[in-house]
Amino acid sequence: MSEEKGGRRRTRSGGREARRALRQQRTVTFLPYITRKFPVTEVLSDEGLEIIENNAETILEEIGIDFREDAEALELWRGAGADVQGERVHIPRGLARSLMATAPAQFIQHARNPERSVQIGGDATVFAPVYGPPFIRSLDEGRRYATIEDFRNFVKLAYMTPAMHHSGGTVCEPVDIPVNKRHYDMVYSHIRYSDKPFMGSVTDPSRAEDSVAMVKLVFGDDFVDQNCVLINLINANSPMVWDATMLGALKVYARNNQGTVISPFILAGAMSPVTVAGTLAQLLAEAMSGMAFAQLVRPGAPVVFGTFASSISMQSGAPTFGTPEPTLVLFAAAQLARRLGVPFRSGGSLCGSKVPDAQAAYESAQTLLPTLLAGVNFVLHAAGWLEGGLASSYEKFVMDADQIGMMQVVGGGIDLSENGQAMDAIREVGPGTHYLGCAHTQANFQTAFYRSSIADNNSVEQWEADGSLDAVQRANALWKQMLADYQAPDLDPAIDEALQSFIAEKKAGMPDAFA
Amino acid sequence: MSEEKGGRRRTRSGGREARRALRQQRTVTFLPYITRKFPVTEVLSDEGLEIIENNAETILEEIGIDFREDAEALELWRGAGADVQGERVHIPRGLARSLMATAPAQFIQHARNPERSVQIGGDATVFAPVYGPPFIRSLDEGRRYATIEDFRNFVKLAYMTPAMHHSGGTVCEPVDIPVNKRHYDMVYSHIRYSDKPFMGSVTDPSRAEDSVAMVKLVFGDDFVDQNCVLINLINANSPMVWDATMLGALKVYARNNQGTVISPFILAGAMSPVTVAGTLAQLLAEAMSGMAFAQLVRPGAPVVFGTFASSISMQSGAPTFGTPEPTLVLFAAAQLARRLGVPFRSGGSLCGSKVPDAQAAYESAQTLLPTLLAGVNFVLHAAGWLEGGLASSYEKFVMDADQIGMMQVVGGGIDLSENGQAMDAIREVGPGTHYLGCAHTQANFQTAFYRSSIADNNSVEQWEADGSLDAVQRANALWKQMLADYQAPDLDPAIDEALQSFIAEKKAGMPDAFA
Repeated sequence: MSEEKGGRRRTRSGGREARRALRQQRTVTFLPYITRKFPVTEVLSDEGLEIIENNAETILEEIGIDFREDAEALELWRGAGADVQGERVHIPRGLARSLMATAPAQFIQHARNPERSVQIGGDATVFAPVYGPPFIRSLDEGRRYATIEDFRNFVKLAYMTPAMHHSGGTVCEPVDIPVNKRHYDMVYSHIRYSDKPFMGSVTDPSRAEDSVAMVKLVFGDDFVDQNCVLINLINANSPMVWDATMLGALKVYARNNQGTVISPFILAGAMSPVTVAGTLAQLLAEAMSGMAFAQLVRPGAPVVFGTFASSISMQSGAPTFGTPEPTLVLFAAAQLARRLGVPFRSGGSLCGSKVPDAQAAYESAQTLLPTLLAGVNFVLHAAGWLEGGLASSYEKFVMDADQIGMMQVVGGGIDLSENGQAMDAIREVGPGTHYLGCAHTQANFQTAFYRSSIADNNSVEQWEADGSLDAVQRANALWKQMLADYQAPDLDPAIDEALQSFIAEKKAGMPDAFA
Repeated sequence: MSEEKGGRRRTRSGGREARRALRQQRTVTFLPYITRKFPVTEVLSDEGLEIIENNAETILEEIGIDFREDAEALELWRGAGADVQGERVHIPRGLARSLMATAPAQFIQHARNPERSVQIGGDATVFAPVYGPPFIRSLDEGRRYATIEDFRNFVKLAYMTPAMHHSGGTVCEPVDIPVNKRHYDMVYSHIRYSDKPFMGSVTDPSRAEDSVAMVKLVFGDDFVDQNCVLINLINANSPMVWDATMLGALKVYARNNQGTVISPFILAGAMSPVTVAGTLAQLLAEAMSGMAFAQLVRPGAPVVFGTFASSISMQSGAPTFGTPEPTLVLFAAAQLARRLGVPFRSGGSLCGSKVPDAQAAYESAQTLLPTLLAGVNFVLHAAGWLEGGLASSYEKFVMDADQIGMMQVVGGGIDLSENGQAMDAIREVGPGTHYLGCAHTQANFQTAFYRSSIADNNSVEQWEADGSLDAVQRANALWKQMLADYQAPDLDPAIDEALQSFIAEKKAGMPDAFA
């Protein structure tokens, strides 16, 4: 596993490339992943963390974790020294942690454009779009099922968003394509319409194999075997179950040395206890069992401690987001991941609101800022998430995109250079005047402050003259403009053709399935 | 200065009181100020902080601070060893910091109901409402000038908000009352319609004197001289100017041993350099000069290091809120205050939006969570702020009130009790089932998770059946219900009569003024 960014893997024709680069400068800015410049926020003491860790070991040993419908998994655990009773694996205290010794502390996920490769782990934070919604919502169309055109649109919007470091995975579920074939179009769209790193399919082991086969066409077989070019979301079936689909996909990716995000998906109160400390112990046990299993499959395979932890309304049972208990879980789980020495995935711009209103924004911001301050390394759902993850929202996507741009600035910390200290400006201006025209302001004004793409800061009179638009209405105009401005990154025609042939052959070889 | 909560200062009639307490239990919950249970977030290293502190001392000594139209202030500074040139006070390195040695590290602001007294400083965070807007906005009426009825309404809403620990000051500007008389009605409203601590007038030294006279009628002369019962907002005229009005009010409150929040009001780029580090050095110098001055007036007078620091749009000059640079200023300024050993005021639920939309919510949350995590002790504008502080919004007030309730839970940290650890629940449930009906869930479900007063977490079908309301529409119904449910806390009729007589006499003694 390399921690250096890979070199270029294909050559480009100079003149055409240069012209394209020039064109793109006009419309697209790319920011590298965030390298946080100040310490993380921590909510638990070492003593508190040890209590949680001890409880997790008790869960692993005494209660056990189910590895279902996967004889190979049970065999691997038996060989490692676990006590396997039926499908329940009792993992002796300390075994999971010791198996994880081979997991890399951080790794590079390579993009087909090496400038977009990202570090997963350490002080890095990588933002990726919303994952999973079957619906879309827009101001124009309301709510409807998502299509492959929506999928492409969200890939394009992610590509155009400076602080979106990753193209993500299932940015929405393209339900207009048969369920057994849509992964081809999804993986292809990430490759064709973006040059940022992306995610593979996990809905069936064969689809994971297809995802690996496709990236081999882009990166070459050897490169893929030695480097992470796909990162893949493996959800636990909480409480304390790994199912055959997820185990199958996990094994495919681990064997191919590709990254897996081992994520308990928890709505506390239903899938974990109603308390923060109880939820933490359970999710730690689940994540450790999955990450240790990946190391059994291929020692050294890159894994990420993932957690999606929210809570439910105890009145209605509905999932809730942006509330205080999940915030505490997020901060503490990040601490637990650091003590395990592996990268951490959580957070995003989560909300339960049906529309991109104040509820959506409060909840999203109350998830996103903790995400940065906790030191989350890989952030799914950083933009576009609406309605508890049931809908990908066009307007919410660009509003969240603005917020992650702000997180990038916060994460950069305070510039203490001489220009940052600005003592010359203070001396020049002196008491009782203003800084608007001073030399230091003139030299810095273009880059001095983050410029929001969504906020309207004008006077109320000007705002009324402009039509009294709210943030959603402005967002509606923005995403349309972005899609109109979109220009696809270059893709080697030979690679494109190889991908299209592969897909056509595979699709022709199986009947359509819709469930 | 006492750090203990004061005893009860008036007796109450038992039966009537008991009945009222019972009634109020149905509608009003009171939470004590937040005592944060985990370490603060810090963005600057000690080395970085020393650079800022060194620059602030350079500003104080070399550039100097103007103390305008106040011969007494200049005399006090001369006596302390400063180099006074005209109205410009050059404060030798280290002098301001050494003068601040007499300032208390923390203090209690007493409320007329001792159960509502608050600690200012240490690990405490106290939320107070929006301060200053001349306009109000509501969904029903849009935007219009505020009146004394609005003022009373916001006092009542603050009283009814569990996590609002303080009644604040100018919750809106009651422009229907002559400018030279409205402070009587404002201070009276805080006393009459709430029993939480509140703020005095600073718009003229005589109004500060009136504020002190009124609280003496409530608390008694001796108690007021020995305890803080008023906290008062003293804004610098940045850059580096204290004007006569603010100095006059500061002197009245300091002489009376009442708290002053010494607050540079900075829109970076206009009133300070366009950089974070430059802004920090200037605001530290300004705050230190004001706090040291208060100690010259009365050593031991309680002071709070305040800062209101946002930035401007370098394109339009408009103030901006919830952006990343002010977030960094907030975190670092809190660190500087801790190193000075005084309480810190900053943050709130700030936004530039004209309406309580997603922009307002993103910006507010991006200010409020840093406020908690930075360890801000006294938080003005915690609810109701809209349009860059030009409008107090009814809907925004209750939406923000929900958010500060969440901050109270986050600040409380993680419960590591046996019940919190919930190992019995995990043992009882085991792999592959759910926690909805288990004994631990049943025992805890009523208090397990924060219950939002604003969020709608229902299914989209249910939400549509309920009228497809957005957060603002739900907030509109909530504040009206709160005002309908409001019941005034008891006030000793003798005190009430004394206050009303005082006000009537004072008002009769001066003609109305409107500017």
